[in-house]
Amino acid sequence: MNAILRPSGRTPAQMREVRIERGYTRHAEGSVLVSFGGTRVLCTASVENRVPGFLRGKGEGWVTAEYGMLPRATHSRSDREAARGKQGGRTLEIQRLIGRALRACIDRGALGERTITLDCDVLQADGGTRTAAITGAYVALVDAVRWLRARKEINKDPIFGAVAAVSVGVYRGVPVLDLDYAEDSDCDTDMNVVMNDGGGFIELQGTAEGHAFRRDELDALLALAEQGIGELLAAQRAALENT
Amino acid sequence: MNAILRPSGRTPAQMREVRIERGYTRHAEGSVLVSFGGTRVLCTASVENRVPGFLRGKGEGWVTAEYGMLPRATHSRSDREAARGKQGGRTLEIQRLIGRALRACIDRGALGERTITLDCDVLQADGGTRTAAITGAYVALVDAVRWLRARKEINKDPIFGAVAAVSVGVYRGVPVLDLDYAEDSDCDTDMNVVMNDGGGFIELQGTAEGHAFRRDELDALLALAEQGIGELLAAQRAALENT
Amino acid sequence: MNAILRPSGRTPAQMREVRIERGYTRHAEGSVLVSFGGTRVLCTASVENRVPGFLRGKGEGWVTAEYGMLPRATHSRSDREAARGKQGGRTLEIQRLIGRALRACIDRGALGERTITLDCDVLQADGGTRTAAITGAYVALVDAVRWLRARKEINKDPIFGAVAAVSVGVYRGVPVLDLDYAEDSDCDTDMNVVMNDGGGFIELQGTAEGHAFRRDELDALLALAEQGIGELLAAQRAALENT
Amino acid sequence: MNAILRPSGRTPAQMREVRIERGYTRHAEGSVLVSFGGTRVLCTASVENRVPGFLRGKGEGWVTAEYGMLPRATHSRSDREAARGKQGGRTLEIQRLIGRALRACIDRGALGERTITLDCDVLQADGGTRTAAITGAYVALVDAVRWLRARKEINKDPIFGAVAAVSVGVYRGVPVLDLDYAEDSDCDTDMNVVMNDGGGFIELQGTAEGHAFRRDELDALLALAEQGIGELLAAQRAALENT
Amino acid sequence: MNAILRPSGRTPAQMREVRIERGYTRHAEGSVLVSFGGTRVLCTASVENRVPGFLRGKGEGWVTAEYGMLPRATHSRSDREAARGKQGGRTLEIQRLIGRALRACIDRGALGERTITLDCDVLQADGGTRTAAITGAYVALVDAVRWLRARKEINKDPIFGAVAAVSVGVYRGVPVLDLDYAEDSDCDTDMNVVMNDGGGFIELQGTAEGHAFRRDELDALLALAEQGIGELLAAQRAALENT
Amino acid sequence: MNAILRPSGRTPAQMREVRIERGYTRHAEGSVLVSFGGTRVLCTASVENRVPGFLRGKGEGWVTAEYGMLPRATHSRSDREAARGKQGGRTLEIQRLIGRALRACIDRGALGERTITLDCDVLQADGGTRTAAITGAYVALVDAVRWLRARKEINKDPIFGAVAAVSVGVYRGVPVLDLDYAEDSDCDTDMNVVMNDGGGFIELQGTAEGHAFRRDELDALLALAEQGIGELLAAQRAALENT
Repeated sequence: MNAILRPSGRTPAQMREVRIERGYTRHAEGSVLVSFGGTRVLCTASVENRVPGFLRGKGEGWVTAEYGMLPRATHSRSDREAARGKQGGRTLEIQRLIGRALRACIDRGALGERTITLDCDVLQADGGTRTAAITGAYVALVDAVRWLRARKEINKDPIFGAVAAVSVGVYRGVPVLDLDYAEDSDCDTDMNVVMNDGGGFIELQGTAEGHAFRRDELDALLALAEQGIGELLAAQRAALENT
Repeated sequence: MNAILRPSGRTPAQMREVRIERGYTRHAEGSVLVSFGGTRVLCTASVENRVPGFLRGKGEGWVTAEYGMLPRATHSRSDREAARGKQGGRTLEIQRLIGRALRACIDRGALGERTITLDCDVLQADGGTRTAAITGAYVALVDAVRWLRARKEINKDPIFGAVAAVSVGVYRGVPVLDLDYAEDSDCDTDMNVVMNDGGGFIELQGTAEGHAFRRDELDALLALAEQGIGELLAAQRAALENT
Repeated sequence: MNAILRPSGRTPAQMREVRIERGYTRHAEGSVLVSFGGTRVLCTASVENRVPGFLRGKGEGWVTAEYGMLPRATHSRSDREAARGKQGGRTLEIQRLIGRALRACIDRGALGERTITLDCDVLQADGGTRTAAITGAYVALVDAVRWLRARKEINKDPIFGAVAAVSVGVYRGVPVLDLDYAEDSDCDTDMNVVMNDGGGFIELQGTAEGHAFRRDELDALLALAEQGIGELLAAQRAALENT
Repeated sequence: MNAILRPSGRTPAQMREVRIERGYTRHAEGSVLVSFGGTRVLCTASVENRVPGFLRGKGEGWVTAEYGMLPRATHSRSDREAARGKQGGRTLEIQRLIGRALRACIDRGALGERTITLDCDVLQADGGTRTAAITGAYVALVDAVRWLRARKEINKDPIFGAVAAVSVGVYRGVPVLDLDYAEDSDCDTDMNVVMNDGGGFIELQGTAEGHAFRRDELDALLALAEQGIGELLAAQRAALENT
Repeated sequence: MNAILRPSGRTPAQMREVRIERGYTRHAEGSVLVSFGGTRVLCTASVENRVPGFLRGKGEGWVTAEYGMLPRATHSRSDREAARGKQGGRTLEIQRLIGRALRACIDRGALGERTITLDCDVLQADGGTRTAAITGAYVALVDAVRWLRARKEINKDPIFGAVAAVSVGVYRGVPVLDLDYAEDSDCDTDMNVVMNDGGGFIELQGTAEGHAFRRDELDALLALAEQGIGELLAAQRAALENT
Repeated sequence: MNAILRPSGRTPAQMREVRIERGYTRHAEGSVLVSFGGTRVLCTASVENRVPGFLRGKGEGWVTAEYGMLPRATHSRSDREAARGKQGGRTLEIQRLIGRALRACIDRGALGERTITLDCDVLQADGGTRTAAITGAYVALVDAVRWLRARKEINKDPIFGAVAAVSVGVYRGVPVLDLDYAEDSDCDTDMNVVMNDGGGFIELQGTAEGHAFRRDELDALLALAEQGIGELLAAQRAALENT
C-alpha cells in the first residue's frame, strides 16, 4: 500500500540509487560525481596554499564550499547567477551549510595553512541537491587530503570521521526518506539532516511547509534519517576503498 | 552551581527579560521594539496593495521579511550592507527564515491581494537577534492586520495561531535556554526553534559548532525551547491585550 | 495669524522640541538618539585604529559618516538600499555633508591615526533628518573622544568648537525655521545651514523648489538659521554636561 | 598687487575666458561644447517621447541630467566609473544639481510628456566643471526646445528665463570669482551659485574647506557671483543669437 | 619529425578525438556533452515561449547562448563568476560568438515567437572550449527543434545547414589544427573559425599572440580549418543519425 | 556605377576623410582626436608607474585600453554604462581588442615597470569606432613614449613598427572599405582588420551578418583592408612628423 504512495514507487524508508564516481574530471585534487537517483552533482576539491585573512599566520587551514546550479539542471531554465550578477539567497544558504558540514570533520591545525574549496555544481536536479552535495563533497575532500599526503605535504590525517547528509519529510501524512523533486514540492515537512559516522548530529534543518509538525513526527523523521545516513556512509566507504 | 555557569548569572532554563513595545515608530501599520535582554530589534509591518509577480491575479496575499543590522549594533563596527552593495549570506538566510515563520500563521487567501513586509532592524545585538525578530514581527503583523480590519479592508482575520522563536544550545556541556552573545560565541551546539501556540514545530535549525550533538542532547534542547516559547507566547498575548 | 500658518501650529521662528539622549545603545564609543520633533536619528560614533589608504603613515586621523534610513521610517515604505544593491544619490549626498561638517571641528593631527565613523540611521523621519543627524553626531563624536581620553589614548582634545545644523525655508511666502515634512514637501525654498559656535558658516545649501529666492529672503533665512543653531548648540551643551 | 594673487594672474573679479560652441556633435537635438578657460564640457540634450514612471499620464515632461568625467580629463587618471561598476557620490551629487538647476527654468506642462536628458561629459577639467556644465546645458536645452518647436511638436515655449552658474571662493583670504583647479584645491571657502536672469537664486552651495566663513565674506562672495553670472548670461545670449 | 612537434604527439593536421553524446541530462529539450580530447562542454538547449523585448510581436524567434566555466575546470581554480558578481570580458565575448554562430543557421521566422537558449558549461578545459561549445550546441539546437516538431509546435524546419567550429594556430612556426591547452598558451597565432556545411565562413577570429602573421600563414590556417570542420560536420551528422 | 552604391557616394575602395589631431586635451601624456569621417574618438594615453599584480617585479610594463561611448554619440541616446553599473559585452570586447592590438607593437621589457592606459572615448559615432580607436590610440601611445623619453625615464624606444585598423565588408554584394553606420547596419559581412607596417596581420575578426562569406570574398576584403591600412599608416606618420 505504501509502495504506491510515493511517485517513484519507493517504500517510505527506501533511498534512491546512490552512485559515487571518483576522478570524474582531471584537474582537481578531488573530483566526484555523486548521484542520488536523478540528482547529479559534480563535487571538486581544490587545494590552495593560502587561507582567508582572518586565519593568516595562525597555522590553521580552512575548508569552504561553493554551490551552483547549471541553468538547465531543472525542469524549466532558471537564470544564470553569474549573468544576474549575484548569488541568490538559496545558493548562499546551501553553500554555507556545505562548508559548515565538512569543517565538522576536519582538524584544521593538522591541515596547515591551506584552503580546500569544495565546488558543488548541480548538473541535473531532482530534489536533495544539498544532501547529495555534502555526501559527495566528503569523498572529494578525502581524495584531496590523500593527494596532499601522497606528496608528503602533511603527515597527519586531518580528517576525523565521515560526514553524510540526507533529506526526510512528511509526504501525504507519511514520513519518508530521501525526497525527490515530486515529493519535495508537495510535502508538509522537509528536513535536512547531516550526521557523522559516530551517530552524532552535525546539522538539522526542518521546515514545516504545510502544517506545523509534531514531536512524534520529528522522532520518526530522525529515525529515517539515521538509517539513510548509515547507507550513505557505507557507499562512501565503498567508493573510497579502491585507491 | 548552575547559577555561576552562565556569564549572565542566569539558570540554564532562564530566559532574559523580554519586552515588547508596540507603536515604537509612527508611520508603519505595525511597529514593535522587541528586547531579549540586550538584544533590541525594531520590527515594522508595512501594508502595500500589491503582490509579487508570481501571485498576481490569484486573490492571495503575501507576507515577507527583510532583516538588517545597524553597523554598530555589535561589539565592533561591521560594514554597512548598503555601502558594500549587497546583503550577506547570513542576512539573506535570516530574512528568509523570518518570512517562512510568519507565513506559517497566515491565511493568504483571507489576506487578499496585498503584501505585508516585516522589516526587522537590529538596533543592538547581544545574541538571538533572529528569534527576537520573529517574536516581535508577529506582534507587528497582528497590529497591521488590526489596522486593515479597523479600516474594513478585510473582514475575516487572516491570522491563525501565534508564532514565536527562541534559541537553545549546549554551553559548556549544559543545555541552556536563550543564548546571549557570550554564550553563542562559545557554545558547542546552537539551535533556533520556531513554534506555534498549538505546540507544533515550524522551523528547527540546529548546528554543531564544536562536537556533534547526541540524540539525548537534542531532546533536552527541545524541551527547553518548548518552555521558552511558552513564555514568549504569553508575553506576546500580554502586549497585544491593550488596544 | 502666523500661529496658523504652519501645519504644526508653530510660529515662524519656533523650532520643534529637540531631545538629545546619550548612551542610547551599548556597544558604540558614542551613541546618541537625537529628536527634532517627530524626526528621530540614532547617531553612533565608532573608533577604529586605522585610517583610509590616502592618510596612512601621515600621523593624522579621519572622521567620516554614513547615513541610512530604515525602510519604514517614512510615510510609505521605501526599498532597503542593501537589498537594491546600492546607496542612492540622496544618501551619498547627505553622508558626505555630515562627514564634511564634523571634520570642520576636529584637529586631525591631535586625533592620531584612527578613524571615527559616525553612523546616522533614521528611525523615524519627519523632515530635517540631515540637520538632526549633524547635530546628534557632534554629541556622539564628543563622547567617542571622551572615551579615548579616559583611556589615555590621546592626551590633547582634538575637538575645537561645536557644530550644529538646522533647516530654514520659505513656506507660503514666509521664512520659517526647522521645516517638518509637511512644510518641506510644499515649500518654495529649502536651505540647510551648518554653523559652529563661533558664528561661522561651515556649510550652506539652499535650493529654490518653487520660484527663485531673492537676496532679502536669503538674509531672513540666514537670521533664522543663526537663531536656531544657537538653540541647538545650547541643547548639545546641556546634554554633554552630565558625564 | 591682487594681480599676482591668483596663480593664473587674473584679478579677483575676473572670470576665465568663456566659450560656448553650439552644434559640437551631430546626433543630439542640442550639443554644446562649453569652456571656462581650461575646463571643457560637452553638453548634449536628448529628447525622448517618454517620461519616468512617476509622471506617466500626467501630461507633464521631465528634464534630467547625467554627468561624467573622462578618465584622463584630470591631472592624474581616475578610474572609469563604468568599469568600477558605479557612479561615485560626487558624480551623483553634481548630476542631481544640474537637473534641479535646469528644471527651475522649464514649464513642464508646456513641454508635454517627453524627457530631455542633459549629458554633461567633462573632456578636460580645470576647476568649475559643474558650473560650466549648468551654463552649457542651458544652451543645449534651448537648442533641443527649438528643435521641437521647428518640428511643431510643441507650440508654446516651455523655457522661461535663463540659468547660469559660477563658483566663487575665498582664496588666501581674498574673495575671488570662478575658481580654477589651482585655487579650488587650496581655498578656504568654495561656493557654487546658480542664478536666473531675474537675479533670483536657484541654488547656493557653500562649503568651508579651511576655516568657517563669516557673514561679510558670504556677502562679498554673493556679489562676485552675481557679477559673474551676468557675464555668463550675456555669453549664452550671444551664443544663442545666431540660429 | 612533425610527430614530435606537438606535446600530444598529434600530427599538425590531426584533430583530437571528438565525441558527441546526446541526451546527457534529462530536463533540457536538447542536451549534449561534447568532447574535443580533454575539453568537455555540456551544451543544453532550452525552449521558451517568449522573445526579448526588441522582437516582441514581430513573429520571429531568437537563438542566444550563455557560456560558463566551472571553477575547477582548469588547472588552477578560478573564481566563480556568480560569486564575483559579474561575467568577465572573455565569457561575454565567447557567449556572444556562440550566439551569432548559431543564429547563422536558423530561419527565425520559421522558429516563431520562441527563444532557444544554448547554455554551454565547461566541465573540463583543455583548450578550444569555444569551438567545442559551438559544435556541440549545434547538435543540442537540432534536438530542441526536433522536440518542437515532434510536438507539432512548428511545422517547417527552421534550421538550414549545419555549423561547426575549430581552432587553428601557428605553433613553433608550424600551422596546426585544433590547439590544446599546452599549444594554446604557447603559440604565435591563434584563430577560431566557424563554418557551415556549404563551405562558407560564418566567423573568423585570428589573433597574433607573438609575431604578426603573414598572408601565406593565414592561407595555411584556413586550409587546416576547412579540413577540421569537415570532420566535425561528419561527427555531428553521425551523432544525429540515431533518433 | 559603383559611385552610387554607397550611401555616402564613396567608391568601394575609398576611405572616409581621416584626421588625426594631437594634443587635443592637456593633461594626458598623449591625447589624440581621431576622425574617420563622422566618427570621432578621443584617445588619451596615461602613464602610471605601476603594473598589474601578475607583472609585479618582472621588470616588464603593460599596455591596456578602455573604451567608452558618450550616451549621445549615437543616433538615439543609449544608457550610460556608469549609471547601469556595468560595461556591456560589446564594450569589453572592443577594449580587449584595442589592448591586444597595441601590445603587438610594444617591447614590454623596454617599457619598464609602468602601465600605459589608452582611454578611447567616442564623442560621435558613425561606424568603425573600434578601428578609429586603434588607429588614434597608436599615435597617443607614441606621444606618451616620447614624453617618457624626453624626461629620460626610458632610454630605448619600446615601440617597434606601427599599428592601424580598418573595417571592410560586403555591402549589397560588393566588397567595400571603411564601413560607415549606414553600411554597417545593412551589410552581409563585416570584418575588422588590424595590421602593422610590416604587412603582417595582428587581428582579423570577420562576421557573416547575412549569408556566410566565401573564400574569394575574404580575399577581396583582405586586399581592400591592406590598401586602407596603408593610407592610415601614412596619416599616422604625417601626424607624428611635427614634434
